[in-house]
Amino acid sequence: MSNSKPLLLTMGDACGIGPEITVAAWEAEAGAGPLCVVGDVAVMRRAVRVLGLTLPVAHLSNLDDLPGVPFHCLPVWQPDNFPADLIDCPVGHVRAAAGAAAAACITAAVLAIQAGRASALVTAPIHKEALHAAGVAFPGHTELLQALAGNPPVRMMLASDELRTVLVTIHCSLRRAIDQISTANVLETIRISHHALQAMGIARPRIAVAGLNPHAGEGGLFGDEEVLHIAPAIVAARTEGIDASGPFAPDTVFMRARHTAAHPGEFDLVVAMTHDHGLIPVKYLGVEQGVNVTLGLPFVRTSPDHGTAFDIAGQGRADASSMRAAIRMARQLI
Amino acid sequence: MSNSKPLLLTMGDACGIGPEITVAAWEAEAGAGPLCVVGDVAVMRRAVRVLGLTLPVAHLSNLDDLPGVPFHCLPVWQPDNFPADLIDCPVGHVRAAAGAAAAACITAAVLAIQAGRASALVTAPIHKEALHAAGVAFPGHTELLQALAGNPPVRMMLASDELRTVLVTIHCSLRRAIDQISTANVLETIRISHHALQAMGIARPRIAVAGLNPHAGEGGLFGDEEVLHIAPAIVAARTEGIDASGPFAPDTVFMRARHTAAHPGEFDLVVAMTHDHGLIPVKYLGVEQGVNVTLGLPFVRTSPDHGTAFDIAGQGRADASSMRAAIRMARQLI
Repeated sequence: MSNSKPLLLTMGDACGIGPEITVAAWEAEAGAGPLCVVGDVAVMRRAVRVLGLTLPVAHLSNLDDLPGVPFHCLPVWQPDNFPADLIDCPVGHVRAAAGAAAAACITAAVLAIQAGRASALVTAPIHKEALHAAGVAFPGHTELLQALAGNPPVRMMLASDELRTVLVTIHCSLRRAIDQISTANVLETIRISHHALQAMGIARPRIAVAGLNPHAGEGGLFGDEEVLHIAPAIVAARTEGIDASGPFAPDTVFMRARHTAAHPGEFDLVVAMTHDHGLIPVKYLGVEQGVNVTLGLPFVRTSPDHGTAFDIAGQGRADASSMRAAIRMARQLI
Repeated sequence: MSNSKPLLLTMGDACGIGPEITVAAWEAEAGAGPLCVVGDVAVMRRAVRVLGLTLPVAHLSNLDDLPGVPFHCLPVWQPDNFPADLIDCPVGHVRAAAGAAAAACITAAVLAIQAGRASALVTAPIHKEALHAAGVAFPGHTELLQALAGNPPVRMMLASDELRTVLVTIHCSLRRAIDQISTANVLETIRISHHALQAMGIARPRIAVAGLNPHAGEGGLFGDEEVLHIAPAIVAARTEGIDASGPFAPDTVFMRARHTAAHPGEFDLVVAMTHDHGLIPVKYLGVEQGVNVTLGLPFVRTSPDHGTAFDIAGQGRADASSMRAAIRMARQLI
């Protein structure tokens, strides 16, 4: 893909902080390469006002019109068949129209990327309940994107300046997550992580695999998933030439992988068995820095590491740092 | 309890880093109040040599002789009936004699505290397998101390300068930990945490209760433990006047509670459902700072937040920071 194609920013749920962080991130990052918002023009105009800006908004009915938009205008590509009353949805509340519009933006953006008209996708936060109210059959971005891409195996990576982690299980109960841990699932996660790091320019990535149980099971005393599933997946990955190691105790492996100037990380990435084992350390120093990357898709997709924040939406208080970091990460990956 | 009574430092497993971090921590912290090692005199002499020190070691057969020990001598109280060949156990290996000696030191120290002859207990790391080899029926300090104290309900608190967390479940498989989450268990943890913080001088502690499942169950979509057990425990605690709140999403509650100069924490403590939800964030910035405190015992007990580190034992390389922090924490609590 060429960097001259625009990177698409979907506005997310119109009732959350998505539109305002999209405006703020566009303003800060547009200088480094073409960006185009995929969203509702009226909602984006409101977001510009919320931020106290006087930025003109350019309404694109066709993405190909982007090169003609003046430099100081916010370009908003509004897909067809948009809910007409979206601007009437109250900020801070779950509304089906907002869920439907969020899904329409994502779908339009993916089709544009698949058609070679855009380079990559950065998605502002959506709301699960709004999607559900709109009859969208997917609980979140990852699952929707996976379906749009023809259901390849995907994994969620969370990355900050200090730490990268890829999750074997995500949005289900912890009991069900444990049931989903298998040699095949862990091995697939290791493989996807390895290829993603190579695509990011790390020739021989060092992948740590965390255990599931306290002390990584203490040799079988505290659970057998390490012995039955995780260790065999590591062995299989190593026979494929992947530098995977573990299973390591979950409570110390993230500390060991943490990379700072004073403390070089021992690993390039940690494969975590559960959503919260991986997300707790990435978020601990502040969600401003975390970026979510979907690995395994045939295109680059990143997003900020936080939700719609209905409680502060529409107030111009939302921090766009993570959305900005997501744009920068997407540019690194294309 | 009076501060003039000594604080006891058990040397831990003789084959691990316990003896050497005990010497180093004693040297650094003894100036602030009386400390007495409970351990094997020959093993402690070896630890002094390992550190390249010329510190004389005073052998106390009775704790009451402590006031007569010169200021520059390391006082070591050696309990009766000690394994005679302890010094012959090879450093870095599991040995039954080391497990038996470690348990004997802890038992003697608790009896001394219960008899009013010492103020509090700081324990250097022991090794589960060595305890097991010695026929000690407890997997770790917490369980042994609980039995010695007459089996009160106890909980493990981990504390750093930034974060305090108390664990509802500890050393068992994650599947079994989930089974152990009940309203009674969570409520007891909240109560013990509340009383401990009050004893530390916080009049009205703000206690956050983390959920178990991703997004704290997302209203029952991802597991029902929050609805069935955790939320009712929080309601019950609040009716008792405790400022407990939640259940919060595990991935962001620790970040919210994190207390730094630039970011005042929203809570004084987080109740975590699992060992690794709580320990991952406490350890993420480095184990040097973490301290383990057993809450619910009728006496103060702290310990460093790391293990025996057999791989570097006997080399004088072990970092005594956490052992020193444990001594300082114990002094705050008595």
